[in-house]
Amino acid sequence: MRFTYLFICLLYSQISLAELRGTGDLGLIIEREPAAVQIISTSTQTSLSHITGLGDLSHASVVYSRDARYAFIFGRDGGLSKIDLLKNKIDKRIIQAGNSIGGAISQDGKLIAVSNYQPGGVKVFSSETLELIADIPATYAPNKRSKVVGLVDAPGQKFIFSLFDANEIWILDLQEPQKPKIQKFSNIGKQPYDALLSPDGRYYIAGLFADNGLALLDLWSPEKGVKRILPDYGKQDEKLPVYKMPHLEGWAAAGNLMFIPAIGQHEVLVIEQSTWQLIKRIPVLGQPVFVMARPDGRQVWVNCAFPDNGNLQVIDVKDLSVKKHLQPGKAVLHMEFTPRGEHVWVSARDDNRVLIYDTQSFKEIKRLPAKKPSGIFFSSRAHKMGL
Amino acid sequence: MRFTYLFICLLYSQISLAELRGTGDLGLIIEREPAAVQIISTSTQTSLSHITGLGDLSHASVVYSRDARYAFIFGRDGGLSKIDLLKNKIDKRIIQAGNSIGGAISQDGKLIAVSNYQPGGVKVFSSETLELIADIPATYAPNKRSKVVGLVDAPGQKFIFSLFDANEIWILDLQEPQKPKIQKFSNIGKQPYDALLSPDGRYYIAGLFADNGLALLDLWSPEKGVKRILPDYGKQDEKLPVYKMPHLEGWAAAGNLMFIPAIGQHEVLVIEQSTWQLIKRIPVLGQPVFVMARPDGRQVWVNCAFPDNGNLQVIDVKDLSVKKHLQPGKAVLHMEFTPRGEHVWVSARDDNRVLIYDTQSFKEIKRLPAKKPSGIFFSSRAHKMGL
Repeated sequence: MRFTYLFICLLYSQISLAELRGTGDLGLIIEREPAAVQIISTSTQTSLSHITGLGDLSHASVVYSRDARYAFIFGRDGGLSKIDLLKNKIDKRIIQAGNSIGGAISQDGKLIAVSNYQPGGVKVFSSETLELIADIPATYAPNKRSKVVGLVDAPGQKFIFSLFDANEIWILDLQEPQKPKIQKFSNIGKQPYDALLSPDGRYYIAGLFADNGLALLDLWSPEKGVKRILPDYGKQDEKLPVYKMPHLEGWAAAGNLMFIPAIGQHEVLVIEQSTWQLIKRIPVLGQPVFVMARPDGRQVWVNCAFPDNGNLQVIDVKDLSVKKHLQPGKAVLHMEFTPRGEHVWVSARDDNRVLIYDTQSFKEIKRLPAKKPSGIFFSSRAHKMGL
Repeated sequence: MRFTYLFICLLYSQISLAELRGTGDLGLIIEREPAAVQIISTSTQTSLSHITGLGDLSHASVVYSRDARYAFIFGRDGGLSKIDLLKNKIDKRIIQAGNSIGGAISQDGKLIAVSNYQPGGVKVFSSETLELIADIPATYAPNKRSKVVGLVDAPGQKFIFSLFDANEIWILDLQEPQKPKIQKFSNIGKQPYDALLSPDGRYYIAGLFADNGLALLDLWSPEKGVKRILPDYGKQDEKLPVYKMPHLEGWAAAGNLMFIPAIGQHEVLVIEQSTWQLIKRIPVLGQPVFVMARPDGRQVWVNCAFPDNGNLQVIDVKDLSVKKHLQPGKAVLHMEFTPRGEHVWVSARDDNRVLIYDTQSFKEIKRLPAKKPSGIFFSSRAHKMGL
């Protein structure tokens, strides 16, 4: 009998001891095949656990609860999974739609919004229970629902998103979650395909797949409507076939400059934020996919679409030129900076590894094995807007 | 025998269970009399525990480990205490100097630097063990050591600080902790009394107690040296007696604007960051002490020195004017925004309470009892530079 107690006791205390850790330095690596996530620590630079049963994780993205204990994973198959980073397990999981493209968490941390392709719209869930709180179909004409893209959270319990098929941007105000308020902006440009929010939560900018320029909404002055910036961008250029849609989710801002991937071109565009003028086109090795600023804004890191996706280039923001060229491996899909920018984690899908670089010396610090890794997401995202 | 096991087991599991929480939404409230700290949760808006034995906590400040599990408290009496937020207790504590004014944590989280008045200098400790790693006396002439103020961490394992008595700014590079490198800038202006770093870690600005203007160092171009900005600030003004030194630690930046408290004046100065020109002086009710931007930069909150320290004013950054006046209680000493800005916590020392406000409606949400509360510090600071 006493051995039973002892066994239970030891087992229990083992589990409990394993959980005694801060959550500020944790993160997730998405593995595509077979679909799984690794929980990692950026302090020990090790993998802490491995979780399966999460459905299709191609193009999956992640947001975090305000205490940085729970991760919410948005799967491409419409799955929404809540992971407990301390218990190393799935806390809750639902299939909320047929085809989903990402999500966001509300300013107060209580609501999770998911943007869906099929059926087109946004669904809002309790972050506590994953119960449905609001269902916002993206209906723009009788029986017509649009794919929803570029969903971000914004200050004041708002979510902002774009309707690919309807050429619209909507502001969803959930201060009273049972009474959602929607403000719609139409004719914002053809086929918005993704969007970003400035780190301060003020400017929402949508990329336009079938139109020139970008659509800009100033959330401090929504009454002024959506205006087109960079109207000449995309006009004269002969477009290359687009191998992969660039991502606009990571707003790369450094001081007064903003960096975005040019769609269909081998260029990063540099925009001056007070005038919204294009001040430079920086040539890169391929079609840029992620264009991300180191947290201090001194460097901008760029990966590229197939067939140039073995490259990583680093722009020095001081003189707006490429200063470093790295080749981390085959199919570099994503990167994530540690919160204060000393390191960057890079996934090389077809080499089945994640690499950690020192961002000052560009030295490789460590490699971690991962099966077809794609997105990397650190828990410090819990405290940021517009992701 | 089996009851002993059972008892130990239950006791152990109780302790362990109590600790199972994320650390992203935790924080500390400093209580001055009797000296203590409260560990709080910004999610539940409750006090979790109360820790004493920390020495003199007047003017205490706090930084966090990169996992947001440990808080490092810098006491005015030279005490340096490491608190375990999960075990609710002091992990380690040393007396490192006679009179201290604050500290910072290195970019990689491994080093804690403390700025001392007496003996004047900076000491650097291991964040793991609190063992001394480097001792940097602020010697500027034979047998003369300066008080050190305005210590901040900066990218690249650096600490930047100012020498009040020597009119100098030093950059301390600790990439090799055993071989500290120091770069000194002299004649930067008379009596630097505090300093701040821009949120991106690029600009270090020191306030000058006995000189006009502010001293600016661009860390991207240190070879250009320290230059004076706002040279007319303080020149013509008849100075009022200064009841309390304003704090520059909280850089209030909103887009391209920077807000700082005018020393000895009832004004907040607004500086345009690309030109470093003063673009507005905003009148406030008293001598401003803390001038802090809500994380989205839309509002700037200002408290005042005695005898106007019952007031809190809110500047709307959209039109640069005071939009709201609150009176939270007697002796409003400090405020801290939740990471995504929906709430602000305010300490009212002489009313023995901390108040939580909704920053959009300005409604008071809750009051927590606290004994002579001063500083409030949330664990999301773990991920920020320049604090």
